[in-house]
This record gives sequence, C-alpha cells and structure tokens, in this order.
Amino acid sequence: MTASRKAVLLLSGGLDSCTTLAIAQQQGFDVHAISFRYGQRHSHEISAAGKIARSMQVSAHVNLDINLGDLVASALTTDIPVPKHSSTDEIDSSIPVTYVPARNTVFLSFALGWAEELGAADIFLGVNALDYSGYPDCRPEYLAAFETLANLATKSATQDGQRTRIHAPLIDMTKAQIIKAGLKLGVDYSMTTSCYDPAPKGTACGECDACLLRLKGFAENGIDDPISYQAN
Amino acid sequence: MTASRKAVLLLSGGLDSCTTLAIAQQQGFDVHAISFRYGQRHSHEISAAGKIARSMQVSAHVNLDINLGDLVASALTTDIPVPKHSSTDEIDSSIPVTYVPARNTVFLSFALGWAEELGAADIFLGVNALDYSGYPDCRPEYLAAFETLANLATKSATQDGQRTRIHAPLIDMTKAQIIKAGLKLGVDYSMTTSCYDPAPKGTACGECDACLLRLKGFAENGIDDPISYQAN
Repeated sequence: MTASRKAVLLLSGGLDSCTTLAIAQQQGFDVHAISFRYGQRHSHEISAAGKIARSMQVSAHVNLDINLGDLVASALTTDIPVPKHSSTDEIDSSIPVTYVPARNTVFLSFALGWAEELGAADIFLGVNALDYSGYPDCRPEYLAAFETLANLATKSATQDGQRTRIHAPLIDMTKAQIIKAGLKLGVDYSMTTSCYDPAPKGTACGECDACLLRLKGFAENGIDDPISYQAN
Repeated sequence: MTASRKAVLLLSGGLDSCTTLAIAQQQGFDVHAISFRYGQRHSHEISAAGKIARSMQVSAHVNLDINLGDLVASALTTDIPVPKHSSTDEIDSSIPVTYVPARNTVFLSFALGWAEELGAADIFLGVNALDYSGYPDCRPEYLAAFETLANLATKSATQDGQRTRIHAPLIDMTKAQIIKAGLKLGVDYSMTTSCYDPAPKGTACGECDACLLRLKGFAENGIDDPISYQAN
C-alpha cells in the first residue's frame, strides 16, 4: 500500500464537484477541499459544500472569502435575472449571463497556492465540457493552458521539479454519466445543490440551465433526483 | 486624438509598479489600478499604493481583500524572518523565503476578471526579470503562459474575439534603468515603498533584497533615494 497523495479539490457544493471528490478519493488521494464565498447570491452552495466535506471526510476544508463580486457582475452575483426554460432544448448555446468573469482562473490560482503550501501536485475540479453552460473556462484547452501556467508559476515546479497536474475527470462525461459514476461510488446526491436561482431556503427552481441539465441526467438514469424542487 | 483605452494595472505601492503606471499613462491608457490586502505583514504597501493612485490620478483604484495568507506561508505574510544582507552580491540566486506561492497568478486572475468587466484588453504589471528576487512568476515565459490562458478563459476572448495583452514593460530592465525611465516621466519615488521588512512606521530597513536592489539602482543613477532608511 502506498501512502496517500495530497490533492486540492475545488468544492462548490454541486453535483459535479461532489462526484469529482468521490473519484479523487477512490483514486487514493488525500483530499483538501476549498470553497469560495465570492459574492454569489445564495449561501446554499457554501452550506452544501460543508455538508459534503464532513460527510465524505475530506482531510481539510477551507472556505475562502474573496470579493470577486466587487469587481465583476454576473447573474450569479447581482440581481440580473437568471434565465429560465422548460427543457434543455431551449438552452442557448452562447455564453449565458450566469458566466462570472475569470471565476475558474481565480479559483484555480488559489488552489495552486494552497497545493504548493501542502506539497500537493494534484488539483481536481468538476468541470465538464458536454452538459454544461457554455463557460469558456470549463473547456479542455483552458485547463491545459492552466496546467502549463502552473508549471511555470511556482517554486515547487521551477526549483524542485514537481509537476502540477490539473484533473478534470468529468470533462468528457454527460450529466447522466456523471450521476451514474457517482452512484456507483456511493455518492449521496441529496447533499448537493445545483440551482442558479433557488428559493430562500435553497429549494431548487427546476427551470434554470443547471436544474434542467441535472434533472435530465437523473431522468436518463431512470431515477429520481433526491433533492426538492419548487412546485410550478 | 484617439479615445484612451482602458487598462488594468497591478499596483503594489513599490517602485516598479509606480513606474509601470507612468509608462501605461504615457502610452495613453486610462489606468484602473488594483491593489491587494493579501495578508502581507505591513500595511505600508497599501497606503503607498493609495498615495500613488491619487497623485497620479488613475481612473479608478480598488483595494481587494483576499485571504491568501490563510492558505500559504511566506516571510511576507508570517513571522518567518526576512533575510538581510550588506550588499546585492550576497543575494542568493535561489528562490527566497519572501516568495508567496501563486501570488502573481492570483493577482493576475482578479485583474483579468476586472478587465473583462471594464471592457479592457490590456493588463499591466511591474515585474522584471533582471534585478528581482528570483520569483518564478516574474519571468517572461510565465507571463506568456498567463496571456495564453487569459485568451482561453474569458467570454470576451472566446465569444467576442477580444485579445488580452499582458504588458510588463520593465521585464528586461535593470533597477537603474527603471528608475531612469521613471524619473524621465516625472515619477515621484518618495511615494513608493520597496522594503520587505520596514519599521512600524514604514521606514525601510536598507538590508533586505528589495532595499538593496533599490539602493543600487539609485546609486547607479548617481542620485539619492528620496525615501528614508533606518540608521544602522
């Protein structure tokens, strides 16, 4: 048995990052999770991330306050309305108003700093390029560019020769495949939250891009999503 | 006369970023400056940045609080002693304890988000690869990798075709050349601070890498540094 390797994981509280955590743990990583209060309108994400971190027994979980919302506007950080649809067919292929400028770049930069501090060479995040909202910083070419940057940015890379790897195990999976993989690993999806526009208590709207993609993923697996949705 | 273009500039309060601001303004950019309270031990940097921003009449100046110091340790954020020397010849060529993991990556990521929000395609920072402290995230190859990343990360780059440029006009200059260029542009270096380990009121130590490189730069120009140093 080899000693477990440390990894840093971006934990949003959503279905994707929760599944990614299960995959990283299954691969033998000693996961250090990081969540961000970046000015998002709803704190339900942070509370879901805490629940997941405790239940899945990560080695450490840090909530970091960053005022990204002071610099940039998005439907996730301001009162711009979140678009609603009746099915995934209606989701526009252009980048939506829920896009937050430079969000993954900021998150990965902090993860990189923490990874260096921990002596971790591996960073996990739950982005995927199929059933997603069209964000540019969720694409494989973006992640490859960040990995190149990471290996030029740090003392551990340039002086000690440690190579940082960015792991996005969900990158080529559909939402249905992600859910299937997570269920196989015993993920309890009732802890997760995906909605861009939940009710004050966190109940999902069922009509935003994130809800529709999630519901479709469960439907394609022939099972019910364990979270609650607002009645129409 | 063309309308001025907006640019985002990382403003630390030091000699280099102040000179970079003068260069950006001379090139006709409408400068939006950003400074970070990232857990550095001394607030004199933030106060110098504010003084410079006001005096040089930037279009906007944002101070952002980020808890980078909660994640990473450095002689700039903890009580690890800052190394002292009697001349620049004694400065070790390895990466020193004042290195802050992922600092420029984190700073540039926020700058990228703000630039997109402002509609700015240009980001300036005052790094230089000659008379510097050996930090990996001050090298041309690092900056080129960040520029590549930036142009894959944002909606403005991927949807609207706007190309982000990272400007590091001091990259190939010695400290003496930087000071000479700044003086020619009328920079008042008495506003700037460089010391890694100043006295409580901000007086420079005169013995850390940053002080020694600065003092050498002024000496090579045959003029006195206008800031005060602690008596030995």
